[in-house]
Amino acid sequence: MAIDAENMAQVLEQFPRQCGEALELPKGIYVSGKVANIVILGMGGSGIVADLTATLMRSQKTPVHVVRDYTLPGFANKDSLVIAVSYSGKTEETIAACREALERGSKVVGISSGGDIAALCPKHIRIPEGLQPRAALGYLFLPVLGLLSNSKLIGISHEDITEALTILSNVAEFKQRGQTLVKLIKGRTPIIYASELLKPVAMRWKTQFNENAKMPAFCNSLPEMNHNELCGYESMKREEMVALLLRDPQDHERIRKRMDICREMMKQTVDVIEVAPRGISLLARMLSFIYLGDWASYYTAIERKVDPTPVHIIQKLKREMAF
Amino acid sequence: MAIDAENMAQVLEQFPRQCGEALELPKGIYVSGKVANIVILGMGGSGIVADLTATLMRSQKTPVHVVRDYTLPGFANKDSLVIAVSYSGKTEETIAACREALERGSKVVGISSGGDIAALCPKHIRIPEGLQPRAALGYLFLPVLGLLSNSKLIGISHEDITEALTILSNVAEFKQRGQTLVKLIKGRTPIIYASELLKPVAMRWKTQFNENAKMPAFCNSLPEMNHNELCGYESMKREEMVALLLRDPQDHERIRKRMDICREMMKQTVDVIEVAPRGISLLARMLSFIYLGDWASYYTAIERKVDPTPVHIIQKLKREMAF
Repeated sequence: MAIDAENMAQVLEQFPRQCGEALELPKGIYVSGKVANIVILGMGGSGIVADLTATLMRSQKTPVHVVRDYTLPGFANKDSLVIAVSYSGKTEETIAACREALERGSKVVGISSGGDIAALCPKHIRIPEGLQPRAALGYLFLPVLGLLSNSKLIGISHEDITEALTILSNVAEFKQRGQTLVKLIKGRTPIIYASELLKPVAMRWKTQFNENAKMPAFCNSLPEMNHNELCGYESMKREEMVALLLRDPQDHERIRKRMDICREMMKQTVDVIEVAPRGISLLARMLSFIYLGDWASYYTAIERKVDPTPVHIIQKLKREMAF
Repeated sequence: MAIDAENMAQVLEQFPRQCGEALELPKGIYVSGKVANIVILGMGGSGIVADLTATLMRSQKTPVHVVRDYTLPGFANKDSLVIAVSYSGKTEETIAACREALERGSKVVGISSGGDIAALCPKHIRIPEGLQPRAALGYLFLPVLGLLSNSKLIGISHEDITEALTILSNVAEFKQRGQTLVKLIKGRTPIIYASELLKPVAMRWKTQFNENAKMPAFCNSLPEMNHNELCGYESMKREEMVALLLRDPQDHERIRKRMDICREMMKQTVDVIEVAPRGISLLARMLSFIYLGDWASYYTAIERKVDPTPVHIIQKLKREMAF
């Protein structure tokens, strides 16, 4: 029997097409009136979508808050745009916080394939069902950007989207780079680093290793890890852990210098792998980094003879939570 | 020669007194006028102070953003209160973002023992020098709360502060509990979990293990880890890693249930240690958790025969960054 019994490879191969389709989903959906702040609710794969959105909004005038919890922050009110993201629409944390937002009179928009989120939210973007939530990142992320763009809260250029989709379509290149990474990681626990801005990408890599390959993985950002985590490298073991640096050519000059110096320091105790994105725009760099991590974690699962699709332990937890 | 050559034990023993002294430092310092949002700049130990403040502000009407980077978010303007926290006052990331805040006309208040932050900030709270930044958490944190309280942005009751200081004064109990934890951790890599609200406390434990004991340590929150990291436990090794659950009796009922279920799942592959805070108020629970982690990491350093105070690798990085 094939290791990839549920054909995650095919799902990943279709990711560029998924992103293209996702562009159509938010058409005609927008909010108007005052938006003092944006609160995005989401756990796991949807939480990453929230973080990626905050990254793309970093230079905008409207603050973005990510909520990975049951409760809404105290400041959220009728002038808040609350975006509830849940692939199934059944994530209990997101539903709880979404109900609170509706009670407070916030402008609420839901993004889901159905479930309570679809039923609760007066404005809703419905996405196709049948995928693992983490494999639906395109369906979850681009509609959030579309909603914000339609609502004139962010400007995303046509060129940036075209660039990102064109780069993603080089599927064979991503697969090949992913396979190369597996050989370099060699079954050790990966610790993934990016600049603070791209920390959500590092987090995505971490969680994809967790869920696809069912193995520990951790992440952090620079400069923050320079102030504490770096000390841990004094006693790391080369046979147990490996550091991956996601290096963005557009990182702040001081971050690039920090990464150069840290690489040499970390190499004393662990192997250090450097990874580059593709593309010029931030959107393309983010999505190309993510797509590479998806393939790297996929091939790591195959190498470990683990079916990448099912997440039995999470399903078991959900069943026990339901009692 | 003693392992604790620079006497970190004494510094830790004086932490309750430090907190008491810190209460006096922000007297008379406040901002007035519109505050649409609060941005707190800080790296490492100062970044944790920012996170802890955001936790205490969770039910307030003013959003709090934590910045661990060189640049200020796009929304920060003259209606933003920007608090620049740096123990030395020389943290380059904090200085860069602070300059940006001054250019934008934000209401800027600095907290430092001197350095550029003291020179740059028109309003400044000066704290005593001569400590390791991570050992100055009381001097850094309570002035932030004092400033926010003086500015009527948060209400902190006298009772909560008295409760916290009274609990912290039971130094012998914290030391004893810290020593017990070292025996349970047994030199393995700790992975520390708390609820999303108390994630900054878990992060503080992690960074204290990194800096005091010079060993790897990681952290995450619930419910987020239920959506991905939990899968990693399928292939963790009992002899390499150990999970610590920081359990707050006031955690959301569903979080408590999640922790109960996760404990049983994680026990299949690693040992799980549960830890409780002291006190009723959130401030007391946070500070008592932190003080316990400080002692646990201290005694772990001693057990590993590592001087807890110096962080040579961070100092080396700083020297190389200066070239």
